[in-house]
Amino acid sequence: MTDESIKKAEHTVSAFGEDLQKLTDMIVRMGGLAEAQLASALQALARRDSELAGRVITSDQRIDEMEQEVHAFVVRLIALRQPVADDLRNCVSALKIAADIERIGDYAANVAKRAMVLNQLAPVRHIAAMPSMGRIVQELINDILDSYVERDVRKAIDVWQRDEEVDELHTSLFRELVTYMMEDPRNITAATHLMFIAKNIERIGDHATNVAETIHFLVQGTPLRGRRPKGNDQDYSLTTRQPAGEGTE
Amino acid sequence: MTDESIKKAEHTVSAFGEDLQKLTDMIVRMGGLAEAQLASALQALARRDSELAGRVITSDQRIDEMEQEVHAFVVRLIALRQPVADDLRNCVSALKIAADIERIGDYAANVAKRAMVLNQLAPVRHIAAMPSMGRIVQELINDILDSYVERDVRKAIDVWQRDEEVDELHTSLFRELVTYMMEDPRNITAATHLMFIAKNIERIGDHATNVAETIHFLVQGTPLRGRRPKGNDQDYSLTTRQPAGEGTE
Repeated sequence: MTDESIKKAEHTVSAFGEDLQKLTDMIVRMGGLAEAQLASALQALARRDSELAGRVITSDQRIDEMEQEVHAFVVRLIALRQPVADDLRNCVSALKIAADIERIGDYAANVAKRAMVLNQLAPVRHIAAMPSMGRIVQELINDILDSYVERDVRKAIDVWQRDEEVDELHTSLFRELVTYMMEDPRNITAATHLMFIAKNIERIGDHATNVAETIHFLVQGTPLRGRRPKGNDQDYSLTTRQPAGEGTE
Repeated sequence: MTDESIKKAEHTVSAFGEDLQKLTDMIVRMGGLAEAQLASALQALARRDSELAGRVITSDQRIDEMEQEVHAFVVRLIALRQPVADDLRNCVSALKIAADIERIGDYAANVAKRAMVLNQLAPVRHIAAMPSMGRIVQELINDILDSYVERDVRKAIDVWQRDEEVDELHTSLFRELVTYMMEDPRNITAATHLMFIAKNIERIGDHATNVAETIHFLVQGTPLRGRRPKGNDQDYSLTTRQPAGEGTE
């Protein structure tokens, strides 16, 4: 290589490094907004605050736009710089992570929509597992974004494993809600919405584990698999509870 | 251009055309499997066939693998051919569509899992909207795959619009199930699973509309938006029904 071509190559590398940094920033900003959306949706639910819920629903559009921006940026980046190997993997991973964050935003907006409906119904009793579940999922989002910025695989694996707590809380919440419905049919409508809210929060946890898998693949080049079963299958088997006196459990 | 370089360029173009054809084939095969999985899951539900449900759950892994294959193929393709413009858009669209099909497969497996649980409970009465909803969603998947192969935007828009029927059926199904629960608390567990099954099918319809949007963008270069509200918000407002005699409706 001539001095000139080395200089040019270095320039390209450094420019690409800047592009990647910008891409990471876009993802993290998007993730931060999704995290805030979830926090607001949970607050709207807990405080019966329809105005806040309404703001969450409106703001979801911004996350959708940010995904489009990431998408456009990555396509331009690939076309312009024609990256290979690690650089290309960084580009494609960003697309995947942006898609997961967009879904997290959708689920937060769904929580807000159902919170609004609940506010039109009589207040329900405190559902013990809901705030804990919400808090853990918020932590998972926060930690997975840190892990992405730092390219920290250990932190990603940690998030992936901690999602199991969410699945367990979801199962216990589901059982609590079925019992609540059985006690009094007037609870059914509200409890149904709470079930879907719980499912939305549980799915947000799954998307955090998806991001963990993407980070693992990005940094290590190998898939993160087989350490624990993916997704929550427990609620498929533990909800066959019958009313007291008629139960099979 | 010299004759030699023209010949070389033509060769590259044609090789890329073959690659794109292969990519389309991979997507369509993957989509066909997802379609078959949904059909089997619905059959397992209708006939209380746990063995068939079990096969659907096992086969979902194959769809996940196919998504990985599409992913690896696209990354190799971008690295090797360094496509720009339309060719690059084809590559990125394939990634998006594969992700949607993978989700459709997940939802079909979830239907099968819940069908298995239902088979352990007493049979429920016929839920009128369920088979119609399942049938329409199967047609949407079939048509959106045709639309992709043919790059037929009109067909994609048609799928996008027909998803509204699915949303309407989902809403009526949801109301039917709430009523069913209120009639007798012993129905609650089964009805809860049927609600999540219905939601899974409705979500499959949403993913078919996602693919429609990707095809529109791929062919026209512009987003497909604003013709009808996305997703099913109706079930957020129409489920506030109370038992007869206490109702607000």
